[in-house]
Amino acid sequence: MEELEYMQEGRTELEQLGEFALIDRLTDGFDTKNDTTLRGVGDDCAVLASAPGRLSLVTTQTMAEGIDFDMMYTPLKHLGYKAVATAISNICAMNGTAQQVLVSVAVSNRYSVEALEELYAGIRLCCDRYDVDLVGGDINSSRSGMVLTVTALGSVAADAVTYRNGARQHDLVCVSGDLGSAYSGLLILEREKVTFQANPEFQPDLDSFDYVLERFLKPEPRADIVAELAKRGVVPTAMIDVSDGLASELLHVCKDSHCGCEVYEERLPIDYQTTRVCSEMSKNMLPVSNALNGGGDYELLFTIGQGDYEKVKEMEGVTIIGHITEEGTGVNMVTPQGSLIKLVAQGFRD
Amino acid sequence: MEELEYMQEGRTELEQLGEFALIDRLTDGFDTKNDTTLRGVGDDCAVLASAPGRLSLVTTQTMAEGIDFDMMYTPLKHLGYKAVATAISNICAMNGTAQQVLVSVAVSNRYSVEALEELYAGIRLCCDRYDVDLVGGDINSSRSGMVLTVTALGSVAADAVTYRNGARQHDLVCVSGDLGSAYSGLLILEREKVTFQANPEFQPDLDSFDYVLERFLKPEPRADIVAELAKRGVVPTAMIDVSDGLASELLHVCKDSHCGCEVYEERLPIDYQTTRVCSEMSKNMLPVSNALNGGGDYELLFTIGQGDYEKVKEMEGVTIIGHITEEGTGVNMVTPQGSLIKLVAQGFRD
Repeated sequence: MEELEYMQEGRTELEQLGEFALIDRLTDGFDTKNDTTLRGVGDDCAVLASAPGRLSLVTTQTMAEGIDFDMMYTPLKHLGYKAVATAISNICAMNGTAQQVLVSVAVSNRYSVEALEELYAGIRLCCDRYDVDLVGGDINSSRSGMVLTVTALGSVAADAVTYRNGARQHDLVCVSGDLGSAYSGLLILEREKVTFQANPEFQPDLDSFDYVLERFLKPEPRADIVAELAKRGVVPTAMIDVSDGLASELLHVCKDSHCGCEVYEERLPIDYQTTRVCSEMSKNMLPVSNALNGGGDYELLFTIGQGDYEKVKEMEGVTIIGHITEEGTGVNMVTPQGSLIKLVAQGFRD
Repeated sequence: MEELEYMQEGRTELEQLGEFALIDRLTDGFDTKNDTTLRGVGDDCAVLASAPGRLSLVTTQTMAEGIDFDMMYTPLKHLGYKAVATAISNICAMNGTAQQVLVSVAVSNRYSVEALEELYAGIRLCCDRYDVDLVGGDINSSRSGMVLTVTALGSVAADAVTYRNGARQHDLVCVSGDLGSAYSGLLILEREKVTFQANPEFQPDLDSFDYVLERFLKPEPRADIVAELAKRGVVPTAMIDVSDGLASELLHVCKDSHCGCEVYEERLPIDYQTTRVCSEMSKNMLPVSNALNGGGDYELLFTIGQGDYEKVKEMEGVTIIGHITEEGTGVNMVTPQGSLIKLVAQGFRD
């Protein structure tokens, strides 16, 4: 009944490891016992054998109040939408189609039934938008705040499933949409929050930031890109969704694929509103930095064989930003002046 | 940026609805869009079409520190084991076999890496014990405490899947193991905690309560019962696991099956240690009350057609406790004196 020893001494702080290193350490040595388990920990989804020629995809992820969202500027309807959208995004990142979600909520009595109804209105909106069924979950009490966990299930043809580890030298690196806008939206909300806390009479000026705010508060999974790739007969060689920022995702793909890459700074798709937010915030804030490290865009980063170049180059909303290089060359950004900037992993961010 | 309206007025407290009524209210009107979705919210698992003749099962559930577990007397290794065990129990309750789990952890920096390693040691132990693969999950920060969500996936033959709604008049009501022991274990731990808080020099006396403590801290899903039923060629007509107490589970089965039932007080399987804990605690504490309302036993409650009586009556660890009656007769316990006690739903407990 005494306080447990590992709480006291010989302790390693969570911050000392990154999230991914921590997961590696905790799941090291778990072996696979079921032949339906084709891929476990380590990609956007687990991959399970389903009917012949089909694979099942499953992913689960948690969002915690005060860490992953701030109730001060996150309407619950948006939160419900985003939680489902980001889970669906993981299914898209395997080149699959989401079909079901389960939602678990742990919530303190600070929240009312009406608040949860708002949350579920957002969940429903996203389910309807992406033809996904809510099939389960539970609601628990918590001591403080809200923790939301969404599990998504999906399906993909066995010959279309796309892992992180399939990129090969000379493949082209592509990304959907634009990068850095979600983080720019967060910066605006954080700024207005500080102003509001200093003076509660203050009315926030958010009108001219619609796009970046929506990108942050209500991201959309790129199911349309998955469908368009299928329509054009393109199976990417590797794919991941951009949840932690382009740099982090490139590092994942290159590490798992045993390769390097070069992406061109001037090719990174950055919306003009992202640029505007940066210039408003500080002379030293570079839009490219938001694109590389901001995260939360939920765009798809994927690689294709050179033979698919013609099929992809005209795709609306897709930009070819670079190419895969051989192992050991690192993950690099080429500046407009032609010099290489080595991209490195960020610290523990969640 | 002002505090959101639904936090303030016209609010309905979560306590005003039970958990199940709350889920009904929040998920009302969600329609099903995918033909692979056979059963959504409302049973122990969602049921999805898989290969011909096979169904996939999926369930997710959350445990929150300070609500579902108390770190003062819950070793993290036990917690990890229990979280996986209770998720597997939901798969068993559909007459299925668990194959994969995903674990999401939200945790404050009060916890060290070593603490999470203890948690995962318990997760691994349970995965090994039940031949289940850990295939995913994530680790997030939280502002305070720990919230643990486990998703379990499993499989069942299409002609063996067992819902809550299949009980028919004259079916026999059966339960595995014994009831009320887990709650008795909790009572002992709560008693020792109070004593310890009053006098930290105090050494707890837990030695003679091994069985009830293990029942509470490290419950086992009854995969053995599922296997034994299959071996004997018995498909239950309805099944549910006993997580909230026998009374609550009987009410679920009877409501969903549109029937009533009678169970016999003297047939309820109660371990002598449960009886001993009750007599130590208070003269007024009845073991049958722990069995009916205690919860946490994770035994299987199921109904069988009368034709299967011979196959089940000799099964080790299964007790026939009553029978199903027609709709409208209520859920009743027959006392040794032959009078009927109507069983009613407990309030919001999580």
